[in-house]
Amino acid sequence: MRCVALTASLLLAGCANAPAEVVTTPSAPSEAAKPPVQLQYLYGSPEAAVGVRAVNARIADYGVWRIRERPTDSVVLAPGATMDAPAFAPCGDKPFAAVFDADETLIWNLGPMRHFAEKGTGFDLKIWDQWEKSGAGKAIAMPGSVEMVNRLRAAGITVIANTNRSAANAKGSEDTLRAAGLGEFKHGETLFLMGDDAGGSSKDGRRATIASKYCVIILGGDQLGDFSQQFNVKDLPAAQRMALATSAAATALWDKGWFLFPNPVYGPWEKLGWDDAFPSDKQWEPK
Amino acid sequence: MRCVALTASLLLAGCANAPAEVVTTPSAPSEAAKPPVQLQYLYGSPEAAVGVRAVNARIADYGVWRIRERPTDSVVLAPGATMDAPAFAPCGDKPFAAVFDADETLIWNLGPMRHFAEKGTGFDLKIWDQWEKSGAGKAIAMPGSVEMVNRLRAAGITVIANTNRSAANAKGSEDTLRAAGLGEFKHGETLFLMGDDAGGSSKDGRRATIASKYCVIILGGDQLGDFSQQFNVKDLPAAQRMALATSAAATALWDKGWFLFPNPVYGPWEKLGWDDAFPSDKQWEPK
Repeated sequence: MRCVALTASLLLAGCANAPAEVVTTPSAPSEAAKPPVQLQYLYGSPEAAVGVRAVNARIADYGVWRIRERPTDSVVLAPGATMDAPAFAPCGDKPFAAVFDADETLIWNLGPMRHFAEKGTGFDLKIWDQWEKSGAGKAIAMPGSVEMVNRLRAAGITVIANTNRSAANAKGSEDTLRAAGLGEFKHGETLFLMGDDAGGSSKDGRRATIASKYCVIILGGDQLGDFSQQFNVKDLPAAQRMALATSAAATALWDKGWFLFPNPVYGPWEKLGWDDAFPSDKQWEPK
Repeated sequence: MRCVALTASLLLAGCANAPAEVVTTPSAPSEAAKPPVQLQYLYGSPEAAVGVRAVNARIADYGVWRIRERPTDSVVLAPGATMDAPAFAPCGDKPFAAVFDADETLIWNLGPMRHFAEKGTGFDLKIWDQWEKSGAGKAIAMPGSVEMVNRLRAAGITVIANTNRSAANAKGSEDTLRAAGLGEFKHGETLFLMGDDAGGSSKDGRRATIASKYCVIILGGDQLGDFSQQFNVKDLPAAQRMALATSAAATALWDKGWFLFPNPVYGPWEKLGWDDAFPSDKQWEPK
């Protein structure tokens, strides 16, 4: 499963670089009796459902509260701004918007995730492309997502998706979000896709485009690249990435404009080695 | 890793029964180049750190807010009460308390989790028992946990741990929590352990004992058994467990007194099969 997930993360997380250790041969056992642990947890457990629903409830509560007074700034970083010297796009008198990633943020991609894991074939971009085109009705809204987008829209906040699905498959993604009960997303207006600009998998340019038209009060995603591409800088060491994401400037935003959904199935953290995840001074051995 | 995690979950989650499919032979590959995906995510990623820190911040905010007016009831279910007909232990004029699980709720058990995964030996109760005795200094407080307990204590709220670590190893667990920076927990007063009463791994009896002395405004844990043993009823079908945990009565408590930490490493959801995690009407195959 590591191979499936790592490759998926490169696509969906918008990583700038493929780590050297990516293996493209199948690594997951096929016909396993049960799904891999991380899929059981995310897609099947009440524990994850409760956690996801709590994030969605907080987003809706925050959005309704936030627009009582007009904010000066969007929560979209200004071009070139970093966590070291954060600066934000101005709100002016623009209409309010909340911007979300799609995959594993608004919807769970049950179809291909089961297919990849069950067949043990690893992530396959051609199959994923088919999924973008034809997945409508087979992806589900995550727990509490429908209620969340409905509450934001009822408060007059425009709900926008900014995803690394392909611009070539815009209709499939519009259909998939609608069929999941999440309402209307329209390419170029409330749906931004990879290929809309020259930024590739970086969402920064699309965020700037959105923030030029909207006062963005909420960013939601399952990957740090859903907030700023600075977290995806090529060869950023794990410790620095951790320091950036847990800096004072970032901490001031988490759960207060920036909302992160749990996703233990894929992400750039799949590069981490033993000593990255387990500091050496915490090593312990039984007698 | 499935075997490691599943067996750990039986211990730490307080499962009433061992599922028939538990395999006790080692199943994790030893000397893997990297940790299993779910360990990379939970223990190593900024994504998980941000998510855990957000839960801790909400707990502290909620606690400080909640005691501005005295609640009528604890968030501990009254003996025999279920989500179908919830009723709670009364607060009276008792002092305020917040009750937390320890493992993967206040601390991350980096020592044995690395050991089990790296050696591929599977969960081993004798090794875990050594860990309870000797792990002080090798477990770490989870992101934001120290700040959270300090804020609650500063507000006059007693912080209590209710864990399925063994009463026989009380000193080791007191030392482990102290060494992680979480302050003083004293067995029988602010530390409740398996063996303190006749309830075995069910925490209901210990919760009732605590609620007889305190107005419990917060329960925190990574497993549903940290809130009520009704979620751990023997042979409870997955769909019913999901329905209970996401019922209206439970939803009224999540993030408003009951706080769940993400833990994709172990839990009772490891019993789930393909069709539990992936509903059949969402099955999708590429052409």
